[in-house]
Amino acid sequence: MKRTFVVLFLLLFVSTATAQEAITGFTPENAKKQLTLEKAFEAKLNTDNLDQWMRKMAAEPHWVGTDYGRENAEWIQKQFKSWGYDAKIETYHILFPYPKVRLLELTAPTTYKAKLTAVPVEGDEFTGQGDALLPSYNAFSTDGDVEAELVFVNYGIPKDYEELDKLGIDVKGKIVIAKYQGSWRGIKPKLAAEKGAIGCIIYSDPQDDGYVRGDVYPKGAFKNKTGVQRGSVMDMPTYPGDVLTPGYGATKDAKRLDREQAPTITKIPVLPISYEDALPLLEALEGPVAPNKWKGGLPITYHVGPGPAKVHLKLEFDWQLTPAHNVIATLQGSEYPDQWVMRGNHHDAWVHGANDPISGMVALMEEARAIGELARKGNKPKRTLVYCAWDAEEPGLIGSTEWVEDHKEELQRKVVAYINTDGNGRGFLGAGGSHSLQQMVGEVASAVIDPQKGVSIKERRSAVNLVNGGKEEFELYALGSGSDYTPFIQHAGIASLNLGFGGENAGGEYHTIYDTYPHYTRFKDPGFQYGVTLANTAGRITLRLANADVLPFAFKPWQATVSGYLDDIMKSCTEMRKAIEKHNNMVDKNVFELAADPKKPFVRPEKKEAVPFLDFTPLQNQLAALETSIQTLSEADISKLSMDKRVKMNQKLMLAEQALTSDAGLPRRSWYKHQIYAPGFYTGYGVKTLPGVREAIEQKNWNEAQEQIGVLAATLKRFHAHIDEMNNML
Amino acid sequence: MKRTFVVLFLLLFVSTATAQEAITGFTPENAKKQLTLEKAFEAKLNTDNLDQWMRKMAAEPHWVGTDYGRENAEWIQKQFKSWGYDAKIETYHILFPYPKVRLLELTAPTTYKAKLTAVPVEGDEFTGQGDALLPSYNAFSTDGDVEAELVFVNYGIPKDYEELDKLGIDVKGKIVIAKYQGSWRGIKPKLAAEKGAIGCIIYSDPQDDGYVRGDVYPKGAFKNKTGVQRGSVMDMPTYPGDVLTPGYGATKDAKRLDREQAPTITKIPVLPISYEDALPLLEALEGPVAPNKWKGGLPITYHVGPGPAKVHLKLEFDWQLTPAHNVIATLQGSEYPDQWVMRGNHHDAWVHGANDPISGMVALMEEARAIGELARKGNKPKRTLVYCAWDAEEPGLIGSTEWVEDHKEELQRKVVAYINTDGNGRGFLGAGGSHSLQQMVGEVASAVIDPQKGVSIKERRSAVNLVNGGKEEFELYALGSGSDYTPFIQHAGIASLNLGFGGENAGGEYHTIYDTYPHYTRFKDPGFQYGVTLANTAGRITLRLANADVLPFAFKPWQATVSGYLDDIMKSCTEMRKAIEKHNNMVDKNVFELAADPKKPFVRPEKKEAVPFLDFTPLQNQLAALETSIQTLSEADISKLSMDKRVKMNQKLMLAEQALTSDAGLPRRSWYKHQIYAPGFYTGYGVKTLPGVREAIEQKNWNEAQEQIGVLAATLKRFHAHIDEMNNML
Repeated sequence: MKRTFVVLFLLLFVSTATAQEAITGFTPENAKKQLTLEKAFEAKLNTDNLDQWMRKMAAEPHWVGTDYGRENAEWIQKQFKSWGYDAKIETYHILFPYPKVRLLELTAPTTYKAKLTAVPVEGDEFTGQGDALLPSYNAFSTDGDVEAELVFVNYGIPKDYEELDKLGIDVKGKIVIAKYQGSWRGIKPKLAAEKGAIGCIIYSDPQDDGYVRGDVYPKGAFKNKTGVQRGSVMDMPTYPGDVLTPGYGATKDAKRLDREQAPTITKIPVLPISYEDALPLLEALEGPVAPNKWKGGLPITYHVGPGPAKVHLKLEFDWQLTPAHNVIATLQGSEYPDQWVMRGNHHDAWVHGANDPISGMVALMEEARAIGELARKGNKPKRTLVYCAWDAEEPGLIGSTEWVEDHKEELQRKVVAYINTDGNGRGFLGAGGSHSLQQMVGEVASAVIDPQKGVSIKERRSAVNLVNGGKEEFELYALGSGSDYTPFIQHAGIASLNLGFGGENAGGEYHTIYDTYPHYTRFKDPGFQYGVTLANTAGRITLRLANADVLPFAFKPWQATVSGYLDDIMKSCTEMRKAIEKHNNMVDKNVFELAADPKKPFVRPEKKEAVPFLDFTPLQNQLAALETSIQTLSEADISKLSMDKRVKMNQKLMLAEQALTSDAGLPRRSWYKHQIYAPGFYTGYGVKTLPGVREAIEQKNWNEAQEQIGVLAATLKRFHAHIDEMNNML
Repeated sequence: MKRTFVVLFLLLFVSTATAQEAITGFTPENAKKQLTLEKAFEAKLNTDNLDQWMRKMAAEPHWVGTDYGRENAEWIQKQFKSWGYDAKIETYHILFPYPKVRLLELTAPTTYKAKLTAVPVEGDEFTGQGDALLPSYNAFSTDGDVEAELVFVNYGIPKDYEELDKLGIDVKGKIVIAKYQGSWRGIKPKLAAEKGAIGCIIYSDPQDDGYVRGDVYPKGAFKNKTGVQRGSVMDMPTYPGDVLTPGYGATKDAKRLDREQAPTITKIPVLPISYEDALPLLEALEGPVAPNKWKGGLPITYHVGPGPAKVHLKLEFDWQLTPAHNVIATLQGSEYPDQWVMRGNHHDAWVHGANDPISGMVALMEEARAIGELARKGNKPKRTLVYCAWDAEEPGLIGSTEWVEDHKEELQRKVVAYINTDGNGRGFLGAGGSHSLQQMVGEVASAVIDPQKGVSIKERRSAVNLVNGGKEEFELYALGSGSDYTPFIQHAGIASLNLGFGGENAGGEYHTIYDTYPHYTRFKDPGFQYGVTLANTAGRITLRLANADVLPFAFKPWQATVSGYLDDIMKSCTEMRKAIEKHNNMVDKNVFELAADPKKPFVRPEKKEAVPFLDFTPLQNQLAALETSIQTLSEADISKLSMDKRVKMNQKLMLAEQALTSDAGLPRRSWYKHQIYAPGFYTGYGVKTLPGVREAIEQKNWNEAQEQIGVLAATLKRFHAHIDEMNNML
């Protein structure tokens, strides 16, 4: 037993051994068994199931609250039961707006009434379901009835407003029109409202999402002129989930905020439109020609405004408490029933959602089916598996968030890790998550074969990175937001992963009526080869976490990555200082005014506050100290470890991620507890690493930046103590 | 007298003195006189003259051979005579093609006949002159009648064909359609023919030259959907000028090549079209979607082809010997009549040419008028001034080239420098030329005031550079080709300058029927303020060269610049070596194939020949030795120099540029004698510095590269000897 552990810990904490059979967290003997099990698992995966299940679940629209959505949940529950899982539906009662009135019209200098309807296309019967299709809108836009001059604000992100400042253009009292992309959509109305706009229109420009990219549906995969991207604009960077029950479960009898007080509903009405509807509006703008980078793919000269185009936007929603049905399916662990490995994917869609989310959902189900079958034949996982099919992800990660909030205390005690998937397609592995899991995920990626090229998915990912000028090494990306891992990692501090394939599945169907079975099987993953590859990848990861002798967390990659984040921040701080010095010098020399074209709008730039020298040493010292401890842990002679200690060690490993959270959470958004990863306050999905410090610097809030350095150092100190507690067990 | 010379040479060879009154090449006393003269000159400049003369000369189309063109030449001659110049017309007889048949039609899968006609616009009567307007065509396209499948080749430059190779697409036997821009237009049919294409269509894409840039004419300055850019496609990088008389003047009785043998007429027919005419052709293409960087501003998905679009292109020209009338106006120098300072601008246009070339022509005339007036009042220039109005620049720099070839021997003895101008507009100084003149031009730029901002044009240029992330210091750009300086500097080795203002004069009128007086005065230089500023700048440069006690050549800036060119080349060689090593390594690892999408065209890249280590030491040693001699010349105590030696020194200074030429010229294009500057063989206008060496490396012709290093080193040695002869006079 003792000798076993020497080898075991060496495998765990030192870098991956060379022999193919060596896998992190397993004794050599158990590694062999595990790899045999994984091969048996892989052999059971069948593309036909994915195909059939997608046909079934994506046959009709199934957003939260629909009968078809509930039927899907019940059907999923039934499937899980048939595979030997203990499956239940947990329902929350969430606020969900359905669009009653949607009016957008150009009222000057000419008139145009926006159609707001995508057309059915030949060869895709699903697009012809008429009134059954959810009208295009942005969920959690406030009600409103506004009329004002229009201003084109590019993507409507912070640097676009800097450009508007240079042009001397103010959006106060105006309605803005912004292109989709450049940030998560919810940032656009949030920022527009902060700048004083009274309404916001979002459209898909053909350059980013239309004919410029490729042939449009149904000839090709891309967005035709009538397609509209639906989507939530809830202020998720403040908190996701039900807008009325922040931080706790939206159970039937939960105390709720008044809707008028809900801070995550937008301040101004916002509506998404097609590029066909955007064209007359943009064409009617005058004022300065848009900066070159703002110009899109419509056959017009893009102007910024304001006006003479004037628009009238009227939106009314039916705000109802709506049931959201999460399916929770459990397969009890044979050795550690109170250690849960969790897997999840949402089941609700905006319309049919063949790609988003059903392509991921059917992969998860096939994975669960195969594992259930293996379990029935005597290969029960050692730890408990919990498979989840979330409802109401689309309007704001609501199903998963309410569930995590509701069960937070138990989850923080029991969950080893949460593995998320969502839409999936042909291409390369994209894997994000807690960097303590990077080594294990890399090992699994070495074991899974790419269905098109016959090499490992890791090798293919590496080839793509190299061709695009990136690194050869396998790395996890850092998680921001955008799917159901958010409540797990950001709020509960549970180590999480997000997995998916893509890169050869481009299209314009996202959140439109065109995300259908015919579109998916023509353009996204014909034959479901990558659906099965996702099941294979996520399933192996799940099984490794479930069966590992010692949980396969490795902190050296974590240390290297987090040190890199700090280096980044310090470098960007220095660059910001230099750039501001240069700028101020140029202002002093009147260079901007001398260079400016007197026939174009010009606002003389102001001098900017100099960037102070921040004291990063608390972070540098903590990371240096941590490095030593992590090195110790990875090199230690742990031959003296008893079985009892091993159980305790696993317990400590599970909880390590939670040591990276702080109860107070991030400034102005206490729901976000994690101190290493968060979605950006002004990017929405895009991650900000070391967010407290990084965002304070980006916002030039120097006092807060110094304060957050202290907060983060204290978190790292707690994490260090946690690592040292493990070292003390050795 | 002796003391004078100490100061004099210090001014000449050391950097510019700080006192405003100190100017390179003048004794303090003469500097004062010169600055007084320049002020008097400036005071005489009158925008009204420019306005009137443009109205006159741009009233009707006046391409070479037209009656209106001849009348303009005669009128210019008359003006010069009235200002006291000895003015004559020197006529050459050049081959010039006039379009008889222009047919372009889509023949499959649908049909479309190209209109090939720009429409008249309201508010611009000149655009309504109907048949008097020259039909749109590319001069020196060969006759042809071809029909074939179409291939879209982006800009049709070398790297675009590399991209086509990756897609496995060959243009052999096809007709290519290329966007204007990315290179000089003549490169497109040249390269297409080298690749086996049988026809070439060039169009203006709205992204580069149309509504994407700004509002179109007549609402704004940019190209409307019917505008077509005319222009020469003669193979000027081989030799410019008359295609039948390479290297010698196209006099009446000159021996001429057969047209069929003329190497600079294109090998395949080529026709320019509007984006209105291009749209149905591009829309009919299938095959791979164009790479992202190739996509333009038309509202379509750009495909590469080949086919199914098939086009029929038929072109026939009337090939006539046509008289080209150069106006040569001389003002005899009072002290050094055999030292000529030359000024030139062309007078022929494609259509009305209000901007190109009349805006530059009227500035030159106003400058000459003012100088003539000063001369009549006793301020005769010390050296002879020769003002030239060139004909037939548009079809291939023909008027100037024939004249230079015809008078080469005399010019090489007598010309101090040639100063060129061409189209001009609102904005910032752009000055290119021989770097031995950089110091003097910089001093003049300090003395001329920007009409919009009230600071010197040098200061404004510097502000623009800084705002665009460039250098604060004033620098000349290196001359490639594109206007009449080419025969002077590239062929005869005469120090040259090219001057113009721009940057706030964007538009789409270039070589179209929209380059008219109304367009010019609305969008290019309303009020002719920059026309007069150009006259002021070029006039002061001319007067300084004419009156300098010692010619204001300074070689330290030359040395620094040329050393920079060598550093560039060595660096790019190293980068090329590294890139090829990386590429070959990736080919070995099969990375490209692993990364490729199996559903898209893919050609496995080949390994490339490794870049050898070239021996640059001959150039490094020559430049190092030169640096010492140039330092000596600039620091020397030349107090012992006699008046006689001063005359000899001036003679040596005049001829220094010629020491940078070699009789053999560049490989495969012996007309180009200059060893420091040449237009690129595959860029056309774009300069290649140290061209023999640089282009051999770019073409991966390693033997030739090493050989050209030797040739260039020998040239630098001759130049060094020339500098040392001056040192020996000290």
